[in-house]
Amino acid sequence: MEVMQVLHMNGGMGETSYANNSLLQRKVISMTKPIMEAAVTALFSTATGTTFQASIAIADLGCSTGPNTLLAVSEIISIMIDLCKATEHELPEFQVLLNDLPGNDFNTIFSSFLPRFQEKLSEQMKSKNGVSTMLPCFFSGVPGSFYERLFPRESLHLIHSSYSLHWLSQVPRGLEGNKGNIYMARSSPPKVLRAYYEQFQRDFSTFLECRGQELVMGGRMVLTLVGRRSDDPSSKECCYIWELLAIALNEMVSEGLIEEEKLDSFNIPFYTPSPKEVQREVQRQGSFSVDCLEVSEVNWSVFDTDFNPNVVSEDGGYSMAGCMRAVAEPLLVDHFGEEIMDEVFKRYRAQLADCMSKEKIAFVNVIISLKKIA
Amino acid sequence: MEVMQVLHMNGGMGETSYANNSLLQRKVISMTKPIMEAAVTALFSTATGTTFQASIAIADLGCSTGPNTLLAVSEIISIMIDLCKATEHELPEFQVLLNDLPGNDFNTIFSSFLPRFQEKLSEQMKSKNGVSTMLPCFFSGVPGSFYERLFPRESLHLIHSSYSLHWLSQVPRGLEGNKGNIYMARSSPPKVLRAYYEQFQRDFSTFLECRGQELVMGGRMVLTLVGRRSDDPSSKECCYIWELLAIALNEMVSEGLIEEEKLDSFNIPFYTPSPKEVQREVQRQGSFSVDCLEVSEVNWSVFDTDFNPNVVSEDGGYSMAGCMRAVAEPLLVDHFGEEIMDEVFKRYRAQLADCMSKEKIAFVNVIISLKKIA
Repeated sequence: MEVMQVLHMNGGMGETSYANNSLLQRKVISMTKPIMEAAVTALFSTATGTTFQASIAIADLGCSTGPNTLLAVSEIISIMIDLCKATEHELPEFQVLLNDLPGNDFNTIFSSFLPRFQEKLSEQMKSKNGVSTMLPCFFSGVPGSFYERLFPRESLHLIHSSYSLHWLSQVPRGLEGNKGNIYMARSSPPKVLRAYYEQFQRDFSTFLECRGQELVMGGRMVLTLVGRRSDDPSSKECCYIWELLAIALNEMVSEGLIEEEKLDSFNIPFYTPSPKEVQREVQRQGSFSVDCLEVSEVNWSVFDTDFNPNVVSEDGGYSMAGCMRAVAEPLLVDHFGEEIMDEVFKRYRAQLADCMSKEKIAFVNVIISLKKIA
Repeated sequence: MEVMQVLHMNGGMGETSYANNSLLQRKVISMTKPIMEAAVTALFSTATGTTFQASIAIADLGCSTGPNTLLAVSEIISIMIDLCKATEHELPEFQVLLNDLPGNDFNTIFSSFLPRFQEKLSEQMKSKNGVSTMLPCFFSGVPGSFYERLFPRESLHLIHSSYSLHWLSQVPRGLEGNKGNIYMARSSPPKVLRAYYEQFQRDFSTFLECRGQELVMGGRMVLTLVGRRSDDPSSKECCYIWELLAIALNEMVSEGLIEEEKLDSFNIPFYTPSPKEVQREVQRQGSFSVDCLEVSEVNWSVFDTDFNPNVVSEDGGYSMAGCMRAVAEPLLVDHFGEEIMDEVFKRYRAQLADCMSKEKIAFVNVIISLKKIA
């Protein structure tokens, strides 16, 4: 499997699309807002007048397609407008660079979400500044892997990435012993855990290297990954979500619906690091200082919480399965074929519902705010 | 009709796609190569070492989706590599900005044409420089109308646009008297011709204003439009292609397949200027000096010429109708509905075949090479 060719969130606007199944990711972006606010404020206050005279370039890496695509960017621009107003600073031109892998549905961003966003932006300008002039804000889509260079040297001021960097550039080599599992699990041999960790180290270090070249000195980067608190890479908090999918797939193997070899050769290109592991790579790579490193949690049953009172779901398993389907389906289709997807996700949904009815489980978020220093 | 929402070449890779029906446009880009070469060489020679140290930003406006999308860019990069080699200048980083309206099929560019292009580029690097390092070349898609600002201030070095700028930002107002026609025609009242010309003046002047802000001082711009030699805006050389489509539509009106009012309210947002008209707007607007202004021709029966010996078409009308369908179908669908398209283009094809069997007709290309001076 070529991750770069295969990995993308479900496109379009349909029932199983990422656009309609990404409330959890939306909640995470909202939760990170204070850290983003601090980063933008710091960037603004250390920047001299000249830095901002021309334009500010903001990149969102792993932007996907949906209402979340422009959410962080929207918050960043809003904070900037407020800062400019408070300091009587002239508004800069904004350049917004939306990156994702080439299979991402950029057409839907450009033709549906961007026009709505631009409308909202001009209303915001009106209400904040009482003017009806358009905010000079230029958008582009940048297709490619963030494990390679994406932008010219020293061309960016601010980078945001949420719920993307836990995706690896490839399935690690050496996972042959991971039988019956599709990710790190309690039953995975140490060799498998090591292979996953080393792939993360290589990938995250390459990521830092590339972004270090692309950011201006003093530029900021706020990253949110699914991770873990524990030192144990196979702990339940980070691996259980994939273990439940593995249970569903194993059921189908035992019923002859999937070949055993097919399952044994499938592993998710994903890594859920601890804050320590993230920090270690940042220090080793050397381009960035750590402004802030935090851990937070988001319940799988986010749909049942008070986050969005308009959404009442009686079956958290259903919503969570929808969310995971929007995220993982293209990978599964590539390996197992399209035909069995409804069956896979019906069973996964049952697993999720059962588990969520018995205990409260949450994703652990690792959030790191960085400043380019070298 | 909102031109910005409706206008785009037929997407995808199917039989009626622009990707498979754009040989004529390809020929035009090839014909313009010497002018582009001169512009790139001039840009290179006047640029000091420092200008190019960071990166060169090249924008293609109206890039569409197909094998032509990256053709001009490919030539520009190739010329640059040769120039750097000849002068022992270190290669800059290239930034390639592909612009078209939001309805353009960017997904197909990103997932099909771009990967092939990148492969070709790395082969070229190998054969030209004997190295297997990747050329640092960063791509992005920029959705939006080129009658608005698209890029940050002074961020571009070179702009290319071929067979796009004859599209207006809107259907001119005041065309009520243009009954039975869908474009300027010999039977159009003077008021209609004036309305078309004034729309062109406004649009082209706005275009120059925006690009003037986006180019660095000394930056270059090479534009190719369908135009005319004659001073008469309704002359056959520029209007006949649409007159033949009008004949097909009028036939369908007389057979009751299209309502007369429906046809009367349809006009193509297109303008085919003379070289003089193009030059006049450049001089009036003031940001650019004219390096070169040329007129050339491309036969409608390009498919039968020696341009591509692999393509032998016994029915030029068929190929030309395919080309025009790929270009005009979204506009026609928006106004007349999808159902009658096959019928419309069957009749249009017959008109084209009949006309092409009797006479040699060509598009007139107006090519202008500009330098930013203010």
